[in-house]
Amino acid sequence: PDQQMGQAAQQRQQQLTKPTGALGDLEALAIRLAALQAKELPQINQPWLTLFAGDHGVVAEGVSAYPQAVTVQMLRNFLNGGAAISVLAKAQNIPLEVVDLGTVDLHLSLPNVQHLRLGPGTANFVHQPAMSVEQCQAALQAGQAAVQRAKANRADLFLAGEMGIGNTTAATALACALTGLAPAQLAGPGTGLDHSGVQQKQAVINRALQYHQDQLEAPLQALQCLGGFELAALAGAYIACAQMGIPALVDGFICTAAALCAVRLNPECQPWLLFAHAGAEQGHVLLLEQLQAKPLLHLGLRLGEGSGAALAVPIIQLACQLHTGMATFAEAAVADRPL
Amino acid sequence: PDQQMGQAAQQRQQQLTKPTGALGDLEALAIRLAALQAKELPQINQPWLTLFAGDHGVVAEGVSAYPQAVTVQMLRNFLNGGAAISVLAKAQNIPLEVVDLGTVDLHLSLPNVQHLRLGPGTANFVHQPAMSVEQCQAALQAGQAAVQRAKANRADLFLAGEMGIGNTTAATALACALTGLAPAQLAGPGTGLDHSGVQQKQAVINRALQYHQDQLEAPLQALQCLGGFELAALAGAYIACAQMGIPALVDGFICTAAALCAVRLNPECQPWLLFAHAGAEQGHVLLLEQLQAKPLLHLGLRLGEGSGAALAVPIIQLACQLHTGMATFAEAAVADRPL
Repeated sequence: PDQQMGQAAQQRQQQLTKPTGALGDLEALAIRLAALQAKELPQINQPWLTLFAGDHGVVAEGVSAYPQAVTVQMLRNFLNGGAAISVLAKAQNIPLEVVDLGTVDLHLSLPNVQHLRLGPGTANFVHQPAMSVEQCQAALQAGQAAVQRAKANRADLFLAGEMGIGNTTAATALACALTGLAPAQLAGPGTGLDHSGVQQKQAVINRALQYHQDQLEAPLQALQCLGGFELAALAGAYIACAQMGIPALVDGFICTAAALCAVRLNPECQPWLLFAHAGAEQGHVLLLEQLQAKPLLHLGLRLGEGSGAALAVPIIQLACQLHTGMATFAEAAVADRPL
Repeated sequence: PDQQMGQAAQQRQQQLTKPTGALGDLEALAIRLAALQAKELPQINQPWLTLFAGDHGVVAEGVSAYPQAVTVQMLRNFLNGGAAISVLAKAQNIPLEVVDLGTVDLHLSLPNVQHLRLGPGTANFVHQPAMSVEQCQAALQAGQAAVQRAKANRADLFLAGEMGIGNTTAATALACALTGLAPAQLAGPGTGLDHSGVQQKQAVINRALQYHQDQLEAPLQALQCLGGFELAALAGAYIACAQMGIPALVDGFICTAAALCAVRLNPECQPWLLFAHAGAEQGHVLLLEQLQAKPLLHLGLRLGEGSGAALAVPIIQLACQLHTGMATFAEAAVADRPL
């Protein structure tokens, strides 16, 4: 980030025809984007969204309200335009690409989907590491490759989404390992578990944390043992965004857990992460606090897919347009001094 | 509102390819709009914004951080495109009309501004009613007339904004009279008063409440004694929106005080009011609670002009597009039953 340009943007905000601070969080947002883009007048013209999908072996423990087949069914729905993220991307003209990192159906071949087939989903991490070292590396690199494609397409904001039945369980387990918070604090209903389902999910995560307890010190190992293909890809993407100078817009609980992992792997990526929303999943707010993040929206979302990130795009674009388009007190001949 | 259509929309929400409730507040929003528009698939294609401006005699008591001349200076800024609301309206192609109800400069004549010249600002309500009965009626009718113009232009969402140095003081006084809350609870810094300025503002409002104490039982009299031209116009507009069947999107503290007055004048207008945001002005959240309102955005805004309402428009439009454009479980062949 270019701190000097951030300061120039801050000075500009104080000269715009409004009481100082009257645009609230949008002022800090424009100033941050000015520093990230190294432009006094930042703009977001080309958002890009990559949706990472993968299956999870831990689903065998009964941790999801929906059957595992829904991961692949939703891949088709993304392509056919019927999913929430498809509608949001189309409405805003945001390119949406889908990367299938590995689902239970290894022969799956869908048009316009990149099938990486890292495995038939992850392994059940109650009994063994979710990923091999090689799988985890390949997933991290898949995230990096997505940001490279975004960059090649002149993207100026990288949105990531995720799909994977069971992935709130993996995200919670990973976040517990990274933060020391207990599963009882972070585990929520996901796609719709009832109270006893949430308790079962917590018990499964506790067993996994116990099983891998000697392997969780380093964030990379925690990711490999407890994460998922899409979680690793997300973490790889967020780090790549910082390295390639593209601000990343983080979606919900899963993406925030991956962002926390990315920051632990490489703290320098933190300034490049913008947080789209605080969702309904109870662990989300706690993880946002760990990251000292101030999310833009509070709409009670708990869908994933990148939907919350896509909903925040207009707010970010309007914050830039206000910063750029408003007149200064001098330009407008408006009295700028309090009495 | 058409409750049957609301129920049809609710059933549709439960069939869309997402866990029930996963779109959070956007689901209730789409369902409400379906009932208001009497369409299972609501849409917002033609938002409209009327900005009501007026001056306030109570400014003589030193209740604003900015000089009174700023009201007229900002009118020019709205026209020249340099104000926040100008940028937000232009960026979204929202027609923006400006109605000058009465400023200190009664000879003011600006292109594309409707000058109603109800008076050289209101009277100082510490010593006399802010408006005569006739002025208050004319301002209410000006609000109604704006909604008629919106309707004639096929508007499907009415946004109102306001400008008037001193109008947080008038809005606070009016809100105190309507709710019984104390000035110490509702008065905030407005455009930027410091602590002693806020105390002075509270004292002024207390004196006004004392002076008019026998006239505040009926909301219309409270409006006439303590309100302002733009506050009355806003209240008139909100009532007219309900009568003409156009959902109204309420902006910040001033607009919310006017909305509360509108609901007290005619409780049937309440279902037609959507609340855009919870702002930074301390009284705003309390008034939203009085109205049992659940605002869409929480961005710490305190600018007025309709800016918060304009920022919420994309979220409302996207909520409609999600409701309309998403596939059902049956259409997408996605498993819709929890295990």
